[in-house]
Amino acid sequence: MFLAMVITLLSDFGDVYPASMKGVILGIAPDASIVDISHSVPRQDVRAGAFVLMTCARYFPSGTVHVAVVDPGVGTERLPIAVMAESVDSRIHYFIGPDNGLLVPAARSIGELKVYEITNTGLFLSSVSSTFHGRDIFAPVGAHISKGLNISDVGRQIFDFIDLDFGEGMEKDGVLHGNIIFIDSFGNIVTNIPSKVSGFKPGDVLEIQEKRISFQKSYGFCKDGEPLALIGSHGYLEIAVNKGNAAAYFNKKQGDDIILKI
Amino acid sequence: MFLAMVITLLSDFGDVYPASMKGVILGIAPDASIVDISHSVPRQDVRAGAFVLMTCARYFPSGTVHVAVVDPGVGTERLPIAVMAESVDSRIHYFIGPDNGLLVPAARSIGELKVYEITNTGLFLSSVSSTFHGRDIFAPVGAHISKGLNISDVGRQIFDFIDLDFGEGMEKDGVLHGNIIFIDSFGNIVTNIPSKVSGFKPGDVLEIQEKRISFQKSYGFCKDGEPLALIGSHGYLEIAVNKGNAAAYFNKKQGDDIILKI
Amino acid sequence: MFLAMVITLLSDFGDVYPASMKGVILGIAPDASIVDISHSVPRQDVRAGAFVLMTCARYFPSGTVHVAVVDPGVGTERLPIAVMAESVDSRIHYFIGPDNGLLVPAARSIGELKVYEITNTGLFLSSVSSTFHGRDIFAPVGAHISKGLNISDVGRQIFDFIDLDFGEGMEKDGVLHGNIIFIDSFGNIVTNIPSKVSGFKPGDVLEIQEKRISFQKSYGFCKDGEPLALIGSHGYLEIAVNKGNAAAYFNKKQGDDIILKI
Repeated sequence: MFLAMVITLLSDFGDVYPASMKGVILGIAPDASIVDISHSVPRQDVRAGAFVLMTCARYFPSGTVHVAVVDPGVGTERLPIAVMAESVDSRIHYFIGPDNGLLVPAARSIGELKVYEITNTGLFLSSVSSTFHGRDIFAPVGAHISKGLNISDVGRQIFDFIDLDFGEGMEKDGVLHGNIIFIDSFGNIVTNIPSKVSGFKPGDVLEIQEKRISFQKSYGFCKDGEPLALIGSHGYLEIAVNKGNAAAYFNKKQGDDIILKI
Repeated sequence: MFLAMVITLLSDFGDVYPASMKGVILGIAPDASIVDISHSVPRQDVRAGAFVLMTCARYFPSGTVHVAVVDPGVGTERLPIAVMAESVDSRIHYFIGPDNGLLVPAARSIGELKVYEITNTGLFLSSVSSTFHGRDIFAPVGAHISKGLNISDVGRQIFDFIDLDFGEGMEKDGVLHGNIIFIDSFGNIVTNIPSKVSGFKPGDVLEIQEKRISFQKSYGFCKDGEPLALIGSHGYLEIAVNKGNAAAYFNKKQGDDIILKI
Repeated sequence: MFLAMVITLLSDFGDVYPASMKGVILGIAPDASIVDISHSVPRQDVRAGAFVLMTCARYFPSGTVHVAVVDPGVGTERLPIAVMAESVDSRIHYFIGPDNGLLVPAARSIGELKVYEITNTGLFLSSVSSTFHGRDIFAPVGAHISKGLNISDVGRQIFDFIDLDFGEGMEKDGVLHGNIIFIDSFGNIVTNIPSKVSGFKPGDVLEIQEKRISFQKSYGFCKDGEPLALIGSHGYLEIAVNKGNAAAYFNKKQGDDIILKI
């Protein structure tokens, strides 16, 4: 089967540090296409990083290697892991990073997963720092897998990896109960209420914090500055303000609960 | 003729969202070189996006496909379009995006243009969201064109597309009348006064808001903090402050008129 | 010898401008892999740009061309230069940019260097602006070298180039005297004290500004909000605050001296 030579990077590193990872990757896999998913994940926010990775990963071709590093425990006892996820139609994605839950929701969004502890030091940079495993361990391991290394060559399979689950919002007695899993760079509020639970039609009216808002197909159906609900491009119920910032409007932040009356 | 496999991206998406577009592109055109022009266009500011695209497009090789998405009308009745622009020396650039004027100044900066409405749903992602046509329509159409799809296969040619023109500053009785089309990330003020209208020589003195400033070849000819006028790298008259922020200095913003006494 | 077709870019250009450089490069070297090191170097801060380039360059494969433009003197008399650096194990890196010290620490971190003045106008864009040599001179020269142009074809070798040295912190009577060469995007304070001078072991205690801090292998060994010293991934002594901002905590900025009692 054709496997794409695509390697994505996600981190909370901000500027500068990702470039060293790319240098390491291109030294091992000169033909790789490297794509930045984001390096602006809120610092050490594993949950936000896991959501961003989950929303993007499925759009990449089979064979893509996702190197993701939001890693408050770098240099401590947390394990480095490599995950292989296979979909029902045999698409394969790899995820390389720390064992702290970051990789799991994205891997599950692809399909069945197998997790391996990375212990094969022969794949690492010759000198491994205590603070930058993204460059010294995860980038070279990802590059080798992208070139065809069998994932079982990184180390033994493990089953007690750290899990992460965003939960799923639910409806009870005409009220939707959810949680905010992400605020995007526009201030749009992404809930954990999947489209199948909300089941709204354009024009339906909801109430949030005693404010009545309408459900619409897209932002442009509202006046500027007007709040609305919609199914975002990620498939979850989203609260937005047309040409405005919903998180500021409703004074909400990531992790807050959200209640919508139908 | 050799056509480069280069695809540029421009949007107001900020972080995260452009990565999904790249995943879609690499699934269709694995050999494409993807270049970000900017994803920090001021939100929903079609005019700023059109200027940025116009200043960059010509520096890319013939055959480049520019996918540009600043799209307040996404999900409404606005059309998706593909534009082919051909220069007098037969260089060809493609522009893919919404029919709101965004693509037109850049396409005109290359040469003659032909505009097609995108209606061939066979080119789209299998599921099209209401809010993210960049990922679901424009990215895959751009990737297919980059691989050699004939532009007339996206849909019928149209002639009533939405136009956008920055106007052109002019001189009258020793006074230059212009408009500010862009403030760059340094705070430099870019006017719509072309170099042929201004016609200044280094050392010439102009007056702006009762402040006398000199025309120079480059920033480094002034003292730190001193304002100057110059022809920017885009070919328009620019007002700058050496190692400073001209927009703050003169309290100007995009869209403001600007008057310079000679 | 195999030479990678990798071209890195570093500048203080922020958004938009780097894209034109990439267009120019891909027109000359369509197969090049272009990697952004950073375009957020503090504006016109040659010293910060030189540090960032130095910490990243060595992680790229032999043959990489680094185009770096932090260039307060653009359009004035400062020379454009190309530098070839060769390591003891015959790895070669090229550095293209202004003669203001920016390229020197990175080139020295690779090995022996030879410096050439760029005078071969046949390599430039047909029209050279006064303000954007990154696009008009440095990008095309870098692309030609990446494709195999001999560096001596850019112009004559020179020996009186402008040097830049970060100095080296030292210990005297139980006190470490250093200087701050960089504050990274996390607020971590990078000193010019190399690991061989500091020589600390995990758990050692230092005093900075009458505050006692511990030396650790990594951030995660401290409580949140607690300051620590460590050897950063660049090999220098670094002062950090776990999940916090050390520059704010200690009220320090780049260029400040720093004194640590042992």
